[in-house]
Amino acid sequence: MAGLGTVGASLLQLLARRRLPLAERCGREIQVTAVSARDRTRQRGVALDGLAWLDDPTTLADRADVDCVVELIGGSEGAARATVEAALAAGKHVVTANKALLAHHGVALAEAAEARGVALAFEASVAGGIPVLKALRESLAGNAIERIHGILNGTCNYILSRMEADGLAFDVCLADAQRLGYAEADPTFDIEGFDTAHKLAILTSLAFGTRVDAEAVHVEGISSITPLDIRMANELGYRIKLLGVAERTRAGIEQRVHPTMVSKATALAQVMGVTNAVSIDADAVDELTLVGPGAGGEATASSVVADLADVARGAFGAPFGVPVAELAPLLRAPMQRHEGGYYVRVAAFDKPGAAASLVRRMAEADISLESIVQHRSPDAAARDPGGRSGAPVPVVLITYATTEAALRGALDLVIADGFVEATPQVIRIERD
Amino acid sequence: MAGLGTVGASLLQLLARRRLPLAERCGREIQVTAVSARDRTRQRGVALDGLAWLDDPTTLADRADVDCVVELIGGSEGAARATVEAALAAGKHVVTANKALLAHHGVALAEAAEARGVALAFEASVAGGIPVLKALRESLAGNAIERIHGILNGTCNYILSRMEADGLAFDVCLADAQRLGYAEADPTFDIEGFDTAHKLAILTSLAFGTRVDAEAVHVEGISSITPLDIRMANELGYRIKLLGVAERTRAGIEQRVHPTMVSKATALAQVMGVTNAVSIDADAVDELTLVGPGAGGEATASSVVADLADVARGAFGAPFGVPVAELAPLLRAPMQRHEGGYYVRVAAFDKPGAAASLVRRMAEADISLESIVQHRSPDAAARDPGGRSGAPVPVVLITYATTEAALRGALDLVIADGFVEATPQVIRIERD
Repeated sequence: MAGLGTVGASLLQLLARRRLPLAERCGREIQVTAVSARDRTRQRGVALDGLAWLDDPTTLADRADVDCVVELIGGSEGAARATVEAALAAGKHVVTANKALLAHHGVALAEAAEARGVALAFEASVAGGIPVLKALRESLAGNAIERIHGILNGTCNYILSRMEADGLAFDVCLADAQRLGYAEADPTFDIEGFDTAHKLAILTSLAFGTRVDAEAVHVEGISSITPLDIRMANELGYRIKLLGVAERTRAGIEQRVHPTMVSKATALAQVMGVTNAVSIDADAVDELTLVGPGAGGEATASSVVADLADVARGAFGAPFGVPVAELAPLLRAPMQRHEGGYYVRVAAFDKPGAAASLVRRMAEADISLESIVQHRSPDAAARDPGGRSGAPVPVVLITYATTEAALRGALDLVIADGFVEATPQVIRIERD
Repeated sequence: MAGLGTVGASLLQLLARRRLPLAERCGREIQVTAVSARDRTRQRGVALDGLAWLDDPTTLADRADVDCVVELIGGSEGAARATVEAALAAGKHVVTANKALLAHHGVALAEAAEARGVALAFEASVAGGIPVLKALRESLAGNAIERIHGILNGTCNYILSRMEADGLAFDVCLADAQRLGYAEADPTFDIEGFDTAHKLAILTSLAFGTRVDAEAVHVEGISSITPLDIRMANELGYRIKLLGVAERTRAGIEQRVHPTMVSKATALAQVMGVTNAVSIDADAVDELTLVGPGAGGEATASSVVADLADVARGAFGAPFGVPVAELAPLLRAPMQRHEGGYYVRVAAFDKPGAAASLVRRMAEADISLESIVQHRSPDAAARDPGGRSGAPVPVVLITYATTEAALRGALDLVIADGFVEATPQVIRIERD
């Protein structure tokens, strides 16, 4: 084991607690023989007696008493990458929870594993305790996947859930998430969508048989979402979630991470708090949804154990389901060609012609409107009962399916017309 | 392949459609070489050219060009059982969708498979296209399972969903389900819970490492559920679902199938129509929920293909996760010792003392009441404005957790008091 943080400590506990059932399942015992971590003296609440302690995790690869290296260091470079590369080069199996490593170097690492005939298993890297990688790679082998979309970041889902439940602003909910340990001191990686993007890149590869390409993910975070957006979503029958979506389209494969309007009737809309969920659209099963813990030491360790059990019983195949040589390059669909409905909120100056400009520009771009809603806030109405001040008023549009290019073009013209403030809020609507 | 009904025809199509990706995944091709079905002339919409046709499915076991027999005949005895037994005895792998066969003969068949070192795989036997058996056997290997509960019968869930959505009676919805092909001409097996019981018995074995014991399942169906129960459930924050529940308790393992009140906030409560769902409570992942198609040709065939792919790449283990010799006998928890909340609806004669009797008998049995609701129907109020007729009025109680024995004892005394009609409606409440 390389890395003894929360997941590592939980893994040691799980392996001890489940020693006998695991031996029965695997036909052999899973024994931890050596560990490596930065700080030998830290209290971890687990016994390390009898385990060899290595200061350099890459030397796990050299040991005769190691068949499989578990990498729980994290990060796409440095010690994590060196440890995994050394292990594979030495013909050791590798189990890892490292999404960044897989998202950036998955193809090369899978090639190395295949060349030596060893496992490279990473169930824990996506959606914590939810066995979505095994579902895609094994359970859905008989299906062509059409789309995969999910809530893959518990921090964001917690913040959005709190904003809705308590009517609070983003910043307040983020601070709460940090206090509760759901968000890091520097939350950028989570709230700006990069964590979701890494996980999505891995899912895309397994779903579509393409080479992992994290650079090809369109990424937007949730920091621009306002309580007004949350309220309007609710009024219009939606809930806002940060989704990772990968979809096969006529223009190529879309990989996108952004705040998304999902119908309140869907399974994903019901998922609140730090829970994760993934829905898979596949031709034979139609839709399969998995809901469970996306993070946490024990849940993540559960997925590591599942991988270890597969390795121990010899039940592993190519890391991405098919050999790397069979993976296709990812043909990226440009976001401008994305098709779908949109939620658009503009701040319209309260003067004659604003609504007319909006409606006309949409019509000129062949964009049909499902709804148009304008509410003046009670505060604004109290301050300015006649609505004569010309202060901006939020106007929300829901469009039927159109293209990103058409919508953005129409909005540029609306802004040029001079009736709305410069930056409209645009949130894509995900079809059910 | 033995059996060429809806699932069999879909399986042939899937295997043709996914021939190349499956070969890439498995490192070998999956080829159908021989088929057996009752009626050779029936139009199935699939080409059978080049396939050997056998009148007797047990002779699949004798063929050198058969490595694996797929049994899709159905039924716990007769041709299905004979085909599987012959195949295993001849050292052929077996993949089956047959829940009745596994529920009744799972242990003996698993012993036969283990003795010959071949696979006995049955993902398709439970919850159609949802890969719940693989999740229990492989993905949750690091977990001790505490409870598994789910919606395992689409017919019942369709009927209950329709009753709620349209305020219709059970019989009307059943007739609709039959018209739409969701229910059989003789619907007993589905609506009285036996289908769910078979699936639950298989899940229990995988979850708790016990010998399959379908006889030890307590079974109640949904035919007694009335529109009034559906409405009252809704009013009290619940939805009625036919659940299969297996749980480890101090009194042993409970296996029960019955209409159940589930909180509307739960994932299971959101599952409407013919969709199935299973929630697994496990110590490391806390809760994992899988939602998907519980029936249908293609969805079921998808699970058969997943099993075939595991067989083809040699990635199979003991049919029940651990060797049969390690399975413990199932220690059945008596229903009288079941603990939980209850919904009780009585028809109280509208005379002084009825409510007092109810409340007093519950208190004497140490049963705390969360709610007590009495609504006279608008019709009854119109016919008898003063409520003087003494005609029965529904009274609904929601109890806090108590035992089945205490509740049944208290209800016997309530009935003996003479204020209510003889048969109260009792629906167990499942904790979240």
